[in-house]
Amino acid sequence: MAVKKIFESVKLYHGDGGVTAPVGFVANGISCGIKTNGAKDLCIIFSRDACNAAGIFTSNRIKGAPLKVSKGNLGNKVHAIVANSGNANACTGREGVQNVREIGKRIGEEFEIPANSILYASTGVIGVPLPMESIVYGITKLKRKLIAENNVRNAADAIMMSDTKRKMAKVTCIIGGKLITIGAIAKGSGMINPNMATVMSLITTDANIAPKMMQRALRSAAKHTFNKLTIDGQMSPNDCALMLANGRQNNQIINRTGLNYSIFEHALTKLCECLAMEIINDGEGVTKVITLTVKGAVSKSEAELAAREIANSVLFKTAMYGQSANWGNIIQAIGATEVAINPDKINVYMNGVQVCENSMFNGFKPADGRTILNKRNIQVVVDLGVGKASDYIITTDLSYDYVKINSQYI
Amino acid sequence: MAVKKIFESVKLYHGDGGVTAPVGFVANGISCGIKTNGAKDLCIIFSRDACNAAGIFTSNRIKGAPLKVSKGNLGNKVHAIVANSGNANACTGREGVQNVREIGKRIGEEFEIPANSILYASTGVIGVPLPMESIVYGITKLKRKLIAENNVRNAADAIMMSDTKRKMAKVTCIIGGKLITIGAIAKGSGMINPNMATVMSLITTDANIAPKMMQRALRSAAKHTFNKLTIDGQMSPNDCALMLANGRQNNQIINRTGLNYSIFEHALTKLCECLAMEIINDGEGVTKVITLTVKGAVSKSEAELAAREIANSVLFKTAMYGQSANWGNIIQAIGATEVAINPDKINVYMNGVQVCENSMFNGFKPADGRTILNKRNIQVVVDLGVGKASDYIITTDLSYDYVKINSQYI
Repeated sequence: MAVKKIFESVKLYHGDGGVTAPVGFVANGISCGIKTNGAKDLCIIFSRDACNAAGIFTSNRIKGAPLKVSKGNLGNKVHAIVANSGNANACTGREGVQNVREIGKRIGEEFEIPANSILYASTGVIGVPLPMESIVYGITKLKRKLIAENNVRNAADAIMMSDTKRKMAKVTCIIGGKLITIGAIAKGSGMINPNMATVMSLITTDANIAPKMMQRALRSAAKHTFNKLTIDGQMSPNDCALMLANGRQNNQIINRTGLNYSIFEHALTKLCECLAMEIINDGEGVTKVITLTVKGAVSKSEAELAAREIANSVLFKTAMYGQSANWGNIIQAIGATEVAINPDKINVYMNGVQVCENSMFNGFKPADGRTILNKRNIQVVVDLGVGKASDYIITTDLSYDYVKINSQYI
Repeated sequence: MAVKKIFESVKLYHGDGGVTAPVGFVANGISCGIKTNGAKDLCIIFSRDACNAAGIFTSNRIKGAPLKVSKGNLGNKVHAIVANSGNANACTGREGVQNVREIGKRIGEEFEIPANSILYASTGVIGVPLPMESIVYGITKLKRKLIAENNVRNAADAIMMSDTKRKMAKVTCIIGGKLITIGAIAKGSGMINPNMATVMSLITTDANIAPKMMQRALRSAAKHTFNKLTIDGQMSPNDCALMLANGRQNNQIINRTGLNYSIFEHALTKLCECLAMEIINDGEGVTKVITLTVKGAVSKSEAELAAREIANSVLFKTAMYGQSANWGNIIQAIGATEVAINPDKINVYMNGVQVCENSMFNGFKPADGRTILNKRNIQVVVDLGVGKASDYIITTDLSYDYVKINSQYI
């Protein structure tokens, strides 16, 4: 009861705050010419205080150069996150890593911080070398901009790619009597699949927390939020979540599990959940956001695997776009896996209406799907009927606009 | 040399012949009302002679009722294949199987053959019971039609679903001095993935061949043809290839491996290859047919797995539709697998032009893809550079029309 009360102190501010909401962080973003259309493409999140850092990275074995360098700097005290859009700096070889180090050197000089106290994230086209001249020029411009103004909206804009909406949020909570804030900006939209660490999320907090515990909280939060998303089953080489804690609230350091850690993890999860829903709702060409639950599986991992197979079936996704309750697509996707099933005992429900009973037609006509699927948010429940485990995935439909966006991407 | 000469006797007739090309087979097709638009939807392939039979079936664990019954009848002498479109009779429970048996009983009575001498195949919507009244009426109509006329084109039309073109072919060869003919009709278009046995292919021959050797030849031919195709990564519960041999050419029976078997297998493979290319070219909304070869893999199976992952990446498919040489999609798809790679040593070629060197930009701009990808047939070669094995997959792009066809399917 006491615990619940303290969890109640967790307050989410959707669309508000961002990485400058916690005390001691400033941020801004500019256009430096990485994107050829003049949109913002370079930003910095800066803390004069040395921060503890945490980070999680894509499980794709092809990793962008920024991730490689960031990983190496995670153990250091960190002062800044530098991020860009328009170019992923992935598949750029040794030159890609050298370019990140060159950026670090220049940022270090301009902002008077050690080069190894910087984390990096990039998103955009793969395989094209960074336009270093533009970036070097941009770093000077970015410094002037940051001195002139603290503007988190510009920073959030500078990491957008096919995103149509700026993504930011903050959460507050009470830990040891102190009001702690965690803020974030994020980008999403395409190449999203739960196997990866996450999309790009940059997070700050004024809590005092040990790196190990922050890493643990971040991993846990991502597992229950970002990693539940799939838009197109594609895992980007650049997905990452980076997090800084400057300790400015002087709470007793969170260096072990316990109540304080639990509140922090709960608050961070709330924040990531909010960002995850922003990301899926802004998925490329999305007209439906589908929560797909598989229950009655023999294990949670089989439930998740079945859910992911269905979610990434293009037949399922296009049928959802067409508001068709064609559950045959669901059954065939499960049948193609090795997940334990009884082929004659699968039940499917869409927005609370049973559309398939014991793997059969139950009188509900698939063509009548539009009577139950004409909403943006769709709940699909598949009961395998062979066990007691369940899990879910959040996914989207596949529309004309997805094809349009991705056929004209380059 | 002698062997090569005999293989040279194999002649393919594309778009010609079909299942009535071999001596002794007749066929026809009608509209009986399974499809609501009045298109043909029921056909029979009939042989007065008792035939040896072979068949291969989807590896999807959800199997249509016709496949279950056909499998049971494969060991018998067979007189007919009955096929319908418009309804898959899959996910229809015990009633589905009973309906197939009821059809068998009526066909048996009308055509004076044992009910267990019939094979079945169905394609169409999943989960809806067969409209038995229409079919029972249709069987009588089909018999009258077959007596009046031997018309393989009607039969081929009656198995089409989203297919835009009738698919039929024949091949001839000399075995033991006899001119042998193998003929086929097929359907394809969607739900096509190489894990399955095949799409629906109905094949006849006037060769004298033991069931065991026919089964072996069919399996081998499918492995090198149908199973190399993927349109949308979806495995239908109804995919099958059924084959009948009536022995009318009185060649010495092919009952073991050797020259005669090899010629037969070679001819059958040629036939299936022709049908497979027809199927992929008529894939749903296809504007590009892509042969995707992965070489330099540590094993053939890893090469195939990598090729399939790339082929089923919606980002890759939409980029191909947009004629973009965005090889980053290829690299990320491979990176997400567990196939052995050196992340910094992948080379990619499109229509003979290298577009990625050592996992990096090599000066060729992805946006210039339209200069090399503006043809219908695309060759993509990915060299993993870690071994000597290679394999290939044939796939298609993903266009607006794919979304249109599948969002409006029901």
